[in-house]
Amino acid sequence: MSDAVTRAIKDLVIANRILAHEGIVDAFGDISVRHPSDRTRFFLARAISPGVVMIDDIIEFGLDGAAHRNAAGPLSAERFIHAAVYEARPDVKALLHASPEDILPFGITKTPLRPMIGSVGDMGLHVPVWDIADKFGDRTDLTVSTLEQGRDLARCLGPNRVALIRGEGFIVTGRSLNDVVRLSAYIPRNGRTIVATTPFGPMLGISAGEVAARLAIDPESNAMRRGWEYWARQAGCDELLAD
Amino acid sequence: MSDAVTRAIKDLVIANRILAHEGIVDAFGDISVRHPSDRTRFFLARAISPGVVMIDDIIEFGLDGAAHRNAAGPLSAERFIHAAVYEARPDVKALLHASPEDILPFGITKTPLRPMIGSVGDMGLHVPVWDIADKFGDRTDLTVSTLEQGRDLARCLGPNRVALIRGEGFIVTGRSLNDVVRLSAYIPRNGRTIVATTPFGPMLGISAGEVAARLAIDPESNAMRRGWEYWARQAGCDELLAD
Amino acid sequence: MSDAVTRAIKDLVIANRILAHEGIVDAFGDISVRHPSDRTRFFLARAISPGVVMIDDIIEFGLDGAAHRNAAGPLSAERFIHAAVYEARPDVKALLHASPEDILPFGITKTPLRPMIGSVGDMGLHVPVWDIADKFGDRTDLTVSTLEQGRDLARCLGPNRVALIRGEGFIVTGRSLNDVVRLSAYIPRNGRTIVATTPFGPMLGISAGEVAARLAIDPESNAMRRGWEYWARQAGCDELLAD
Amino acid sequence: MSDAVTRAIKDLVIANRILAHEGIVDAFGDISVRHPSDRTRFFLARAISPGVVMIDDIIEFGLDGAAHRNAAGPLSAERFIHAAVYEARPDVKALLHASPEDILPFGITKTPLRPMIGSVGDMGLHVPVWDIADKFGDRTDLTVSTLEQGRDLARCLGPNRVALIRGEGFIVTGRSLNDVVRLSAYIPRNGRTIVATTPFGPMLGISAGEVAARLAIDPESNAMRRGWEYWARQAGCDELLAD
Repeated sequence: MSDAVTRAIKDLVIANRILAHEGIVDAFGDISVRHPSDRTRFFLARAISPGVVMIDDIIEFGLDGAAHRNAAGPLSAERFIHAAVYEARPDVKALLHASPEDILPFGITKTPLRPMIGSVGDMGLHVPVWDIADKFGDRTDLTVSTLEQGRDLARCLGPNRVALIRGEGFIVTGRSLNDVVRLSAYIPRNGRTIVATTPFGPMLGISAGEVAARLAIDPESNAMRRGWEYWARQAGCDELLAD
Repeated sequence: MSDAVTRAIKDLVIANRILAHEGIVDAFGDISVRHPSDRTRFFLARAISPGVVMIDDIIEFGLDGAAHRNAAGPLSAERFIHAAVYEARPDVKALLHASPEDILPFGITKTPLRPMIGSVGDMGLHVPVWDIADKFGDRTDLTVSTLEQGRDLARCLGPNRVALIRGEGFIVTGRSLNDVVRLSAYIPRNGRTIVATTPFGPMLGISAGEVAARLAIDPESNAMRRGWEYWARQAGCDELLAD
Repeated sequence: MSDAVTRAIKDLVIANRILAHEGIVDAFGDISVRHPSDRTRFFLARAISPGVVMIDDIIEFGLDGAAHRNAAGPLSAERFIHAAVYEARPDVKALLHASPEDILPFGITKTPLRPMIGSVGDMGLHVPVWDIADKFGDRTDLTVSTLEQGRDLARCLGPNRVALIRGEGFIVTGRSLNDVVRLSAYIPRNGRTIVATTPFGPMLGISAGEVAARLAIDPESNAMRRGWEYWARQAGCDELLAD
Repeated sequence: MSDAVTRAIKDLVIANRILAHEGIVDAFGDISVRHPSDRTRFFLARAISPGVVMIDDIIEFGLDGAAHRNAAGPLSAERFIHAAVYEARPDVKALLHASPEDILPFGITKTPLRPMIGSVGDMGLHVPVWDIADKFGDRTDLTVSTLEQGRDLARCLGPNRVALIRGEGFIVTGRSLNDVVRLSAYIPRNGRTIVATTPFGPMLGISAGEVAARLAIDPESNAMRRGWEYWARQAGCDELLAD
């Protein structure tokens, strides 16, 4: 295994632990990272809770959702979301699918999830909502469990960074694991801010120019990485941080 | 004691600890499991806080609420809820009675508790509200403390999985302890989602077909059990998980 | 020191620790207990945070707010609240003064704090609001710091169990420390329930008969004490619980 | 290094840790203290998360934002906020810049952040809102990153203690680190109280006379310092508290 692959897998474990420790995922939720040198592969844990993921739980998948290595234990149905997004979006290097509760309102009403605070400026101005019932009928169990469903969700995501899933959660894409974790940590806060502010009347969001300025920041700059290191230590990942 | 009984009792202790750790119960709240081989008996802890329940605190009860074994310490008045529901509903294998605060609004207003998110799809479309005052007058202390009251609550529950109790809490039935714990963990989240979404206007809930699809999932499948194992470890129950 | 006094002081330390651990108090807040055999005296910690109170921090006071024993360290200005309530209300054996945030709305609007859930039924139907400005003008710092102010608050409390203090918090009286701690733990929950339910429209509270039934429960019965023992263990007070 | 400087640096580390432990800052946020004997200098940590700041991370800055000593590691862009406020306001001895979420609504609507509870009476009656777009256009990334921007924010702050920053957070000034930490700990609570009370209708805030009375309290009196010592212990800073 190359050093880059080893690092990617360690970082994926850290990302799982951070997301659990920060309450972005609980028993459910899944984050993946694209293979650093083979763009047709990605890494994702087997179907266990993110808070207990270890290096040996990481499985390598192809863009059809098939497992290629280290495939012990049940696979996440949600691998089809990851496969389809990596297929459709070469720019995406990491992806979270989760259900933090403070974004749920925006998937079941007409109120859009738009950026009100600078820390989610790079979420973009538009967050589409995908409803599985639109194409797959109102008798599914709401879980994406086929590549076809994953591809439909990827189509809805389009060129955006984030898409909401009606009654279920959201997906967040990024240029790196750190990029996804940082943005995902602040989107629920942005959601709570909209809920809290609503009774006060009209509210002033981040402008298109500000969104562009946030997106122009290097996601691996010191300012954008300090959360990663702090949260990793809080989640007990000191050892995994080391090379 | 048969292996199945030993396992059921250990799992009941785990369920108590998970519910306390996840904040579904606090000093109060009570969960039971039907005897694995004798449908006229069930297990329930004596009247102590769920977070400190141990194996020796579990008592065996009959469907009249009488204690049959290991009856040291005061009994929960709430045993009559459990007895009456097991009597009325042969399909019910486990039962929680608790007061998580985020479901309380739905017991004191006309706003129904309906499923907005997939994870509570198997709650069913209809959650009845039981008001002890309707039959027993407005001078009770709101605690179910007779078999007659328990039976009236069971009648209100009818064929549903969940019933709200005005000014007090709810009961959640299931096909197993895991089934009850998992659903109970997400119902408060569903309640908070309704509260948060209300100022946004109309909201789109889970459809009847989706509810049916969720109910069709095997509650002991890997996807439905991963919460149990994760939460049990979080609550310090590693030893109790082992056979 | 008599055994009863030793026990009262230990229980007062436990009460301080529970209230801090459960978030009813933070750096501020003060709880007292009347002397078990001398009704003209009460015990209250010196002016330190409740979460770090130890046996040696407990001071004995008279009903004029003067310290009588173990008076090292600065005294709480709030001792005048305690003194005045014990003076006016011989039935009161313990008293909390604190600022849990979820009761603050009810001190600054016309919306009354009324019991919606059984666990606070013994709060009573009426909770008066005391505004220091009514008698002492609008140039105080909102802290009760004289016996005269304490007596005015006690007059407002009247025969009730709880009084709100505008812009500051509340006082909760009880028949024992356990009685005060248990009720205080659930009043914020009742406050949050009213806030959460308000957008849903009219809500159904606990009736006068139900309030009477809750008040008729022995506050030292097993059902009413299980919270005390559980919370004390959670707060690390095992040793203080022992005789 | 003088004893006063050593003490100031230790206290700055404590302040960082308290703010992280109490959730006023997370991975981001920055607090500084003016040099005790040289009013043209201040201390601020390098650009790392407040919860992991140690003595060696503290850097000395001039009022132009230039680092003077111990300048290892990347500097916070936000040093320009600190520099500009110390320049404009000789009375300010300590300053926090942070983004606690419960104050965010007040930076994006017309609803003012005004004191409703005594503990924030010394916040003052008026909290201005600074919008970076007013002077620097709507294409910034919302981060203050030049001295000119810092000075514009300081102008908006004027003689007040607190200023909100649209879509970003707030700054809180004080007469000491303890003064800033205490006030900052309670402002989010005041924000939550306004949000919670809004559906109830008109609410009664702290009067001008009460604000004046709160401001007249010595910020280093025992009553105003007990939070500092308690929170420091909670945050594991016992050793740093000692001389």
